[in-house]
Amino acid sequence: MTDSRLLTTGELSERVEAIFRKAGFNAAQAGAVTRVIVAGERDACKSHGIYRIEGALRTVKAGKVRPDAEPEVPPQNASAIVKVNAKGGFANPAFELGLPLLVERARTYGLAALVINDCTHFSALWPEVEAVTEQGLAALVMCPSYSAVAPTGGNKPLLGTNPFGFGWPRRGKPPYVFDFATSVAARGEIELHRRAGKPLPEGWAIDADGRPTTDPSAALAGAMLPFGGHKGSAIGTMIELLAGIMIGDLTSPEALEALGTTTLAPAHGELVLAFSPEKFAAGRSGDPFARAEILFETIVGQGARLPSQRRFAARAKSQAEGVALSAAEVAQLDRLLALGVDAVD
Amino acid sequence: MTDSRLLTTGELSERVEAIFRKAGFNAAQAGAVTRVIVAGERDACKSHGIYRIEGALRTVKAGKVRPDAEPEVPPQNASAIVKVNAKGGFANPAFELGLPLLVERARTYGLAALVINDCTHFSALWPEVEAVTEQGLAALVMCPSYSAVAPTGGNKPLLGTNPFGFGWPRRGKPPYVFDFATSVAARGEIELHRRAGKPLPEGWAIDADGRPTTDPSAALAGAMLPFGGHKGSAIGTMIELLAGIMIGDLTSPEALEALGTTTLAPAHGELVLAFSPEKFAAGRSGDPFARAEILFETIVGQGARLPSQRRFAARAKSQAEGVALSAAEVAQLDRLLALGVDAVD
Repeated sequence: MTDSRLLTTGELSERVEAIFRKAGFNAAQAGAVTRVIVAGERDACKSHGIYRIEGALRTVKAGKVRPDAEPEVPPQNASAIVKVNAKGGFANPAFELGLPLLVERARTYGLAALVINDCTHFSALWPEVEAVTEQGLAALVMCPSYSAVAPTGGNKPLLGTNPFGFGWPRRGKPPYVFDFATSVAARGEIELHRRAGKPLPEGWAIDADGRPTTDPSAALAGAMLPFGGHKGSAIGTMIELLAGIMIGDLTSPEALEALGTTTLAPAHGELVLAFSPEKFAAGRSGDPFARAEILFETIVGQGARLPSQRRFAARAKSQAEGVALSAAEVAQLDRLLALGVDAVD
Repeated sequence: MTDSRLLTTGELSERVEAIFRKAGFNAAQAGAVTRVIVAGERDACKSHGIYRIEGALRTVKAGKVRPDAEPEVPPQNASAIVKVNAKGGFANPAFELGLPLLVERARTYGLAALVINDCTHFSALWPEVEAVTEQGLAALVMCPSYSAVAPTGGNKPLLGTNPFGFGWPRRGKPPYVFDFATSVAARGEIELHRRAGKPLPEGWAIDADGRPTTDPSAALAGAMLPFGGHKGSAIGTMIELLAGIMIGDLTSPEALEALGTTTLAPAHGELVLAFSPEKFAAGRSGDPFARAEILFETIVGQGARLPSQRRFAARAKSQAEGVALSAAEVAQLDRLLALGVDAVD
């Protein structure tokens, strides 16, 4: 019997990367995908940790993502838009390729956009948000997913859970970061309720007939609801427009049609906006980074929390003590390493 | 006794502009402020129509906005950021001055930002969103207001109602536009409930002790709540960071401190982002404007509504039949024209 284990992030990375290499991922794909999965596990963000490995392998096995893709930067105009083509691979190596260009453009023009096309996005947005903030820039990131959410007033899946992420850099501290689905809950949370046999909270979803439901399976067969009623529905629609249609990539209904299932990771595009606070604040009084700290102190001072703090606390713990994996998780990693894509349906 | 009246938008504009000119507004301020007020009344958006005239005059009388300001475009770098200084006047004439520059930069760089500093913002964002979409560009607009909303988990006003507006241009049709407060309700709606003596819906506000309340006066003395729980709270915070701190202008708590009251229009800055769909979609297959129509048809086809449709229907009616004012409203316009700023406290 396998025991539970404490691994350093380096040790966990080696194990996860070996699984992907064994499954036919090239170095760029395996490295970048491993980095986001290990970051999720390290931050106790279980729905984006090693739990995601199987989904990535299933999507490869189904032929819906290319594990050997080499992302490319097509010839660029001197504009504030940087384009990277993921060539049918995962979004993560394309993001890593485009990031230095995005940073350079944002510093030159004050703001810039990174467009990733033809990618499969299966991780959270916060690793990308944080990567931009590490360069001293603010970030706004969004992408479609596949039809799972009914627009307010409608009764069928149309919008994706369309994540929306934002980050603000802080000196000597983890950044201010949020990253959330524009549905009431992330699809992964509904899936986790299903696996645990737990009913959903009220207001998360409707069934296939458009009636409110708390049954996770009925919800997965029906539609999720947008967060915040018509306002969240509007933001979800905005993400379809900006991060799907505007960048010449698939909307959530198109991604679902191309994929043919809701059990694999969807292919589409992604939009990352980067802002230079120095450029925006130039000529005005006050240091924007120092002023932001006053805002954060006031929020915390009245008992409210900044987003992502639980994640940063878990990160600090993992970095000090290692990442704790259960015996079942260790066994599953061993199994995935031994079998590769044959480990999944 | 005065009768109710039907006025053309031209006739209404003349009356409203005359009031502002009489009250000491210069041509730029009176013209631009009149345009947004008449647009609100025309679109049956009463909370941003002629109801706002008194608030504008009160803010002038209190010395909190300069009715004779001439907005200026300071020397610009060749970047994607256009800055306009409102010189302590209303945001609207500054926006009108900056718009052609924003459009030119967005077409050149693919995306661009208009920063308005040192302005008083008292109108809705949708007139500005629509002005950008009329140029074939998508728009994202935001600004702080003054502390009125408690962050999720907190119990005191800190964030503003911080409006968030977005628009997508449509050929031969009014644009896709949304513009909403990141509080559950706009402050104006709470004020309208107070005037009408009606209780607030549950979940809109807390009283000065942090307890839920449905009393509009208690809500105005306490704090409003963000829409969509912690997600709306995070978006409201993002607006403080991007459209307050990053652009070197006041946050909502700073605006409240500078103003000293919640009954006048607040001074701060505003951030307008413009995106060129042609530039973003270049080299990709499919026309983004045609593809967006498919998305809109699918939304409407399942019984959901696009935002702003009620407003556009009211606009069509006003343009065909005239803008209907009650006898009391006509009398109030006459009174404001006769007395100028002496008509308000």
